[in-house]
Amino acid sequence: MLEELEGEGHRTISSQGLAHQSGVTSAQVRKDLSYFGNFGKRGLGYGVTRLRKEIRLILGLNRRWKVALVGAGNVGSALYSYKEFRRQGFDIVGVFDVSPDRVGQRWRDLTIRHVDDLKEDAERIGMEIGVIAVPARAAQSVADRLVAAGMRGILNFAHRRIQIPTAVALRTVNLSIELESLAFAIKVLHAKPSPDGKRRRAR
Amino acid sequence: MLEELEGEGHRTISSQGLAHQSGVTSAQVRKDLSYFGNFGKRGLGYGVTRLRKEIRLILGLNRRWKVALVGAGNVGSALYSYKEFRRQGFDIVGVFDVSPDRVGQRWRDLTIRHVDDLKEDAERIGMEIGVIAVPARAAQSVADRLVAAGMRGILNFAHRRIQIPTAVALRTVNLSIELESLAFAIKVLHAKPSPDGKRRRAR
Repeated sequence: MLEELEGEGHRTISSQGLAHQSGVTSAQVRKDLSYFGNFGKRGLGYGVTRLRKEIRLILGLNRRWKVALVGAGNVGSALYSYKEFRRQGFDIVGVFDVSPDRVGQRWRDLTIRHVDDLKEDAERIGMEIGVIAVPARAAQSVADRLVAAGMRGILNFAHRRIQIPTAVALRTVNLSIELESLAFAIKVLHAKPSPDGKRRRAR
Repeated sequence: MLEELEGEGHRTISSQGLAHQSGVTSAQVRKDLSYFGNFGKRGLGYGVTRLRKEIRLILGLNRRWKVALVGAGNVGSALYSYKEFRRQGFDIVGVFDVSPDRVGQRWRDLTIRHVDDLKEDAERIGMEIGVIAVPARAAQSVADRLVAAGMRGILNFAHRRIQIPTAVALRTVNLSIELESLAFAIKVLHAKPSPDGKRRRAR
C-alpha cells in the first residue's frame, strides 16, 4: 500500500488514511506501528517513504534472498516469470525438476537442474529459500530435500501439508482454498444482501 | 485435511486429532463446528466422510462454479492448467485477453476470447466467478468489466488493490506477500532460535 501511495506521489499519510485503506482501525494502526518504533508525527502523520523503508527493514526485506524453485511445470514456470518476486528482492537462482524432458532445458539465464543436484547447488550458490511447485505426491520428499540442502524457509504451493523441522520457516499457498473461500463469501453475500453500488477498498 | 484423512482410509477423527493437525485447540474445533451443527458423537469423534461433506455444503461447494479467467499470460496459463480447481468444483469456461497474439489461440477445449466479449460470453454461459491474472495497471479496468458482466465473486492475482461493489465477493492472492512473510518468519526464527530437529505439522 505504501509503495502504491509513494508511486502516486503522496508524501505523508495519517493513521486514519492507513486505517481506511487497510480495513483496520486507526488506533490499531498506531498501536501496531508503535510496537516497532516511533514513526509518525502528531498532526503530520507518517512519511510514506520512510515508513515503507522501515517496514521493509522490519520484514527483513532490506536485502536480497536467493531462491531455489523445485518443479518446472506450469506453476513453477509461472512463478519463474513473475517479475514481482525479483522486484521485492527474491532472486530465483536455481530451478530443479526430475523429468528428463525438463532437466537441461534453458530458462532465460538458468539451466534446469536435476533435484539430485539441489544440495550441492544450494550450498555452492547460497540458496536460502525453497519453493515447492511439484505435484502433491512429491511434496514431502521435496521438502525433505530442501531441508537437507539447508533452506531456512519454504514456500509450499503443493496441495499437501508437509512436515519440516521447526527451525525452518514455512508458508503454504493453497490456490484451491482461495477459490473455496470465495465461494463461501458469495454464499454469505447471497444469504445477507448488502446495499449494492457502493465502492469499497479491497481486502 | 479431511480429504487427506479420507484418502488415507480414516473413518473417524477426534476433535483432538483435528486440533493437532490444524494447529488450534480441540475446544475451538468443537466450538466452531457446533456453530454449524451437531456433527460429532461424544467418545466417537467425527465421521471423516460425513464431516467433509458437511463442510463442503457449509462452504457452498456442493455445486459447480463457472469461472471466467482474464489474462492468458504465465499466471493465467498456470491457473488454467491447475487441475485442483476442477476437482474442487471450479470450471474455467472462458479465457479472455487483449493481446492479438493470444486472442483466438486454442487452450485445450477453449478458444481465448477478447475481453470485449466478456460480458456477452459471461451472460450466455452463466459465468459467476472472475479471476484476474493481468498486469497491475490493467487490474481495475478488468475488475470493472467483470462486475459489469455480472460476476458474483472475483479472485484477484494482480499486484494491485481493486475496488468493487460490496455486493461482489473478493479474494486477493498476492504471491509477493507470501514470500515477504516467509522472509519475516526466517528473520524471527533467526532472532529466537528454536530447538532443531523436531518435526511439526504444517500450517
